[in-house]
Amino acid sequence: MYSKFTNLIDLNDMPVNWWNEVLELGLKIAGNPQAYSDECRGKIMATLFYEPSTRTQMSFQAAMLRLGGTIIGFDNPETSSVAKGECLKDTAKVVSSYADILVMRHNYEGSAKAAALTADCPIINAGDGGHLHPTQTLTDMLTLLKVKGRTGNLTIGLCGDLKNGRTVHSLCKALSCFKNNKFILISTKELSLPGYVKDIITANGCRYEEVINLEDAIGGLDMIYMTRIQKERFESEDVYLRQKNIFCLDKDKLNKAKDDLCILHPLPRVDEIAYDVDGDPRAMYFKQAEYGVYVRMALIIHMLKNQKPTKLLLGLDNNGIKCENPRCITKLEKYLPGSFRMNGGIPECEYCDERLK
Amino acid sequence: MYSKFTNLIDLNDMPVNWWNEVLELGLKIAGNPQAYSDECRGKIMATLFYEPSTRTQMSFQAAMLRLGGTIIGFDNPETSSVAKGECLKDTAKVVSSYADILVMRHNYEGSAKAAALTADCPIINAGDGGHLHPTQTLTDMLTLLKVKGRTGNLTIGLCGDLKNGRTVHSLCKALSCFKNNKFILISTKELSLPGYVKDIITANGCRYEEVINLEDAIGGLDMIYMTRIQKERFESEDVYLRQKNIFCLDKDKLNKAKDDLCILHPLPRVDEIAYDVDGDPRAMYFKQAEYGVYVRMALIIHMLKNQKPTKLLLGLDNNGIKCENPRCITKLEKYLPGSFRMNGGIPECEYCDERLK
Amino acid sequence: MYSKFTNLIDLNDMPVNWWNEVLELGLKIAGNPQAYSDECRGKIMATLFYEPSTRTQMSFQAAMLRLGGTIIGFDNPETSSVAKGECLKDTAKVVSSYADILVMRHNYEGSAKAAALTADCPIINAGDGGHLHPTQTLTDMLTLLKVKGRTGNLTIGLCGDLKNGRTVHSLCKALSCFKNNKFILISTKELSLPGYVKDIITANGCRYEEVINLEDAIGGLDMIYMTRIQKERFESEDVYLRQKNIFCLDKDKLNKAKDDLCILHPLPRVDEIAYDVDGDPRAMYFKQAEYGVYVRMALIIHMLKNQKPTKLLLGLDNNGIKCENPRCITKLEKYLPGSFRMNGGIPECEYCDERLK
Repeated sequence: MYSKFTNLIDLNDMPVNWWNEVLELGLKIAGNPQAYSDECRGKIMATLFYEPSTRTQMSFQAAMLRLGGTIIGFDNPETSSVAKGECLKDTAKVVSSYADILVMRHNYEGSAKAAALTADCPIINAGDGGHLHPTQTLTDMLTLLKVKGRTGNLTIGLCGDLKNGRTVHSLCKALSCFKNNKFILISTKELSLPGYVKDIITANGCRYEEVINLEDAIGGLDMIYMTRIQKERFESEDVYLRQKNIFCLDKDKLNKAKDDLCILHPLPRVDEIAYDVDGDPRAMYFKQAEYGVYVRMALIIHMLKNQKPTKLLLGLDNNGIKCENPRCITKLEKYLPGSFRMNGGIPECEYCDERLK
Repeated sequence: MYSKFTNLIDLNDMPVNWWNEVLELGLKIAGNPQAYSDECRGKIMATLFYEPSTRTQMSFQAAMLRLGGTIIGFDNPETSSVAKGECLKDTAKVVSSYADILVMRHNYEGSAKAAALTADCPIINAGDGGHLHPTQTLTDMLTLLKVKGRTGNLTIGLCGDLKNGRTVHSLCKALSCFKNNKFILISTKELSLPGYVKDIITANGCRYEEVINLEDAIGGLDMIYMTRIQKERFESEDVYLRQKNIFCLDKDKLNKAKDDLCILHPLPRVDEIAYDVDGDPRAMYFKQAEYGVYVRMALIIHMLKNQKPTKLLLGLDNNGIKCENPRCITKLEKYLPGSFRMNGGIPECEYCDERLK
Repeated sequence: MYSKFTNLIDLNDMPVNWWNEVLELGLKIAGNPQAYSDECRGKIMATLFYEPSTRTQMSFQAAMLRLGGTIIGFDNPETSSVAKGECLKDTAKVVSSYADILVMRHNYEGSAKAAALTADCPIINAGDGGHLHPTQTLTDMLTLLKVKGRTGNLTIGLCGDLKNGRTVHSLCKALSCFKNNKFILISTKELSLPGYVKDIITANGCRYEEVINLEDAIGGLDMIYMTRIQKERFESEDVYLRQKNIFCLDKDKLNKAKDDLCILHPLPRVDEIAYDVDGDPRAMYFKQAEYGVYVRMALIIHMLKNQKPTKLLLGLDNNGIKCENPRCITKLEKYLPGSFRMNGGIPECEYCDERLK
């Protein structure tokens, strides 16, 4: 099944060439945002947030407004037609007739792809459950380009919950496409990076190393990507309290780091970065939030200008098999056609990328 | 009591001539929306949604933004001053000093008229309980004009819950004003069109026929208006399950319809139109949602340009009698003056149009 | 600690000269709002409402839109990142990188000052708990200027709950800065104006008088400022019902007032002004709401144009003492540095202005 549009569902659907175009435009915008203040005059962006995320929603809204465009949308499914039981395909169809571009956040995996099946304008995935969040990865890359001047030749630390963090998975997949990057994966064994992401790193020709201690690893890093560890991920409160400090970045640990370390965090943080780090010139996580607006401005411009039909689903239903992932959008929206691609002989759901067992 | 403005409370307050002006402008806009992109530059529309309705609110917002105007408002009374117990008259008075035009949705009948008593700018009724929803009817008429080229000489099917559906009542009242329309009313006996609406159809010189089966009726129709039937309207789940398919439009029934049937639905649908109908070229319900934006653009332009004082209430309090309708706005906002018009010797509430028993 | 910006946290941080500049600009705007419709083109205002206040939020939004600017923000902390436990300093830091000016409402006292510590753009306090609400006071003063032509030489009645009403406290502090004002404080003994506000009135060279009856006092007033009395403030429902009428302004009491009395109310009102007063030409409370937009337009223009670093905290932590006010923002945001100024030998919290006991 095709879409009439080029959507941003998964960064890895796009060639690296496309990333570079967006990032280069992002850099230009970051240098002179005012120059783009009429770029989207007369255009409407709809932000459909089935799951609240003020930060991401405001970042997109600010981006569109900085381009001279306007915004509609909702941030709370309980005050939307959703409460009347409308299916995703109808909402996508209708709202896409009101707007020129849709930004969607949803708690089910594969929801943005599902919406793209009927939408009459391009869609940007602003997070579909624990699955993908491509504009965060673009943000991370633009920040690296601004701060380090490159996205390759880096020793990249990733610290915290590497198992459940979609931003970490996306970033690994993206940065392993650039030459000579090395990944230092810092987490407990229980929260280590999934095997399939490690396979991608290796397949892309990069190396990785797994360590269990931030303090020991920090000295060799060009960049450290901190993420939140949720208390509930640990076997007990006790284990959590014993371990959390090991994965918390504070002034002491920072003393052992390089002078040009770049500290990133997708935000919001809780306590995995101590407040006394905020004033350090290497703390780039607030700048990162600002660059998130510039890269979204670039993305919106690029998507509104460069449109052609794309393939969304291969359309193989594999004899009526069903995706088994309970968080897959096909579980919620029953009318969606099952669709699988073969990966090493095993069918993989084209919405949520989960493999059948 | 007078309003300083021409408000859109009830479509039937307006002469057919006024409808035609709005619809003609709507057609022009549908042909070239960009040409109107500065029409409301500098104007603010406030959307006061005491009852959430994302679709309607976003349609109005998109309309105002497409005209170069801007929007404020709320969609959730719980996060509004309403929670502090402010009366409708004060909210209408204050917000109308912030905005140039108000759009109001409320769960009580007659609320838009009540707000118009104090508002300092024109008001559009975007739905007052189960009572009126004039912009939906304008949307339906614009869609007919676009698709069929006419609003008269039509055999019009209406299917589903004809008893409780305000959009159906409004549409019957409106379309019976055009020559040579015939209404085919398709519903269970329990959910049939109220007598007073049938009286209006007849009084306007049109004919109607009541049938209990969509399949038998569909072959003769130029247009079919599908509406949702709520499970709770049936005497039991059992009866509902046995009957619902009779009033569901699917591919099979559609095979018996004319080639130029126009299928409409005010949306959101649940399961009264099967998904496999969506791809049929006769399915116009998503186009209808798009035309809803154009007709609202026309309405906003027309109302901001054509303003004169209008009469809101005759002001007869009929010796202190009270409206008996528990959903009438006068039950909620106790300060409102009772006001009745005489209809066949019986007083009729001028807010909710309910007759005294 | 310094802010890079001139924020509006407390009206009394600003010289009277600054007030006059804003008010004069407000008068000009009130005379010809259209002339300012491009003043903030390209600028974004973020409204961060941790506590819902539709009226205030819409007033700010209308002001920014009337200036050609745009708006982002939230009105419900439950649908914001706050729900994920983000601290105020991070939210202020991030959102200020999206916007050009922040407007903040919060239920804790001193919250706007706390946010200003990290924000990268100027902040306007739109109400911090029961503490301050400077733009309401600017609104009250602009209304007086428009209606009476002056802010001095007035006999000013204040009626209702004078103990808990932050708008009353702010107004007394502000109007006592102008020559020859006399304050008539009309309330029960239990709800009388706090001693420290009376001290300020006297220190500024004005007089005040305390009375317990609106009817007796109204004849001598140039202006009456009505406020809501909450039932819960009385020792029993019985006492409330007996007393509430004494502090309710109705047609009868108004008959004893001067012809040029100016009746104000910060709104929303409940029943402290009878509805039959609304039509009286002396009722200025709805006009006041309109002037609130003009004065906010003036404020936004003034703040975006006149920026220089200001001192936020003296930074004395007085040997680790803590503010004892349970509604102080330092109780909620534990990372905030304690900071006190000495006032008559007693430390006073620089966030919430509460003195240590």
